[in-house]
Amino acid sequence: MDVFEAMSTTRAMRRLDTSKEVSDADVLTMVTYATKAATGGNSQPVRWMVVRDPDKRAALGAVYGECWRMVRPMYASREDEPAVARMLASADHLGDHMGDAPVIILPCSKGQEGQVESSIFPGVQNLFLAGRALGLGTTLTTVHRFKEDEVRTVLDIPADVNTWAMIPVGYPTGRWGEPKRRPVEDVTYWDTWKNPPPTA
Amino acid sequence: MDVFEAMSTTRAMRRLDTSKEVSDADVLTMVTYATKAATGGNSQPVRWMVVRDPDKRAALGAVYGECWRMVRPMYASREDEPAVARMLASADHLGDHMGDAPVIILPCSKGQEGQVESSIFPGVQNLFLAGRALGLGTTLTTVHRFKEDEVRTVLDIPADVNTWAMIPVGYPTGRWGEPKRRPVEDVTYWDTWKNPPPTA
Repeated sequence: MDVFEAMSTTRAMRRLDTSKEVSDADVLTMVTYATKAATGGNSQPVRWMVVRDPDKRAALGAVYGECWRMVRPMYASREDEPAVARMLASADHLGDHMGDAPVIILPCSKGQEGQVESSIFPGVQNLFLAGRALGLGTTLTTVHRFKEDEVRTVLDIPADVNTWAMIPVGYPTGRWGEPKRRPVEDVTYWDTWKNPPPTA
Repeated sequence: MDVFEAMSTTRAMRRLDTSKEVSDADVLTMVTYATKAATGGNSQPVRWMVVRDPDKRAALGAVYGECWRMVRPMYASREDEPAVARMLASADHLGDHMGDAPVIILPCSKGQEGQVESSIFPGVQNLFLAGRALGLGTTLTTVHRFKEDEVRTVLDIPADVNTWAMIPVGYPTGRWGEPKRRPVEDVTYWDTWKNPPPTA
């Protein structure tokens, strides 16, 4: 798949086909490409925690659901916006079904908040793009961090290791499509803050 | 370009051909694909600050060089390692020449450290991959944050806006090649912390 097509059509896939198996080989391909992203001083701090065991997935799903329900009221005032309503419907679905994802991946590392994220999330994007090319849907979620200790307990992760995201992986039930984004000229400044870019 | 090839061959390009112009159109293509990455609740918090003005680039380069020389002693004990020595040689080059890069891009946003990075760096990786497909080299640097106020002053960026990275962009003088990374089985755990993945 062309790299521009992969970037254009990788969107949050929160509804997964829970009956369709994901191969270990495809998961390892995703992680292999995730490791190719840059990290500060090539420190490669990320450990990719792959969860396939059904009981552990169910336990993670329960924690995720509790956290999602804690966060959800933040969106209450925007439920009238059609795009937000659509997002909430699929996020609610994920809140109930995270544990049913065939695979859950958590990028983990030691290191202080606010200092190592730049070495974590570029690799996460590679993970997503590799998944896209293999036909596998993903979504970036971070709300489990409200109850990160419970997640650590499920997976025997030491207290000094952070779990930066909880990523469900599986074949999506929806279609791939371009996510809605603001036009580039609205989010790009040129030489000075708020100075627009040249018209292309 | 195939997405897997792009991910395999996107490595830190710290030596740029400063005589070869980069088109505005290519810069806007890079930013366009950067905007396609996921952000929390599709909040799209990033503003992409593109710096082409030579005086502003020189000023940013001076700040960057000071910050790099602050950080560099951290690597002193590892200068004997060949890979570290090679990295330091090119990082020293960048320390002296950041301001000569034809373009410098800074992803900016409001939002607390440790909370919005997951909405910033996936887009940065897309920026890099789009650059790769266009033949443009990039490097992720964050050391300018030791003197972030000076960077804000150069670019008239408000005090409540963070500048997450300083990314030089240009045609590289070196060749594209696969970066050295640990084997996937060394950085992947399966179901439980430190439990290795199945052999592929």
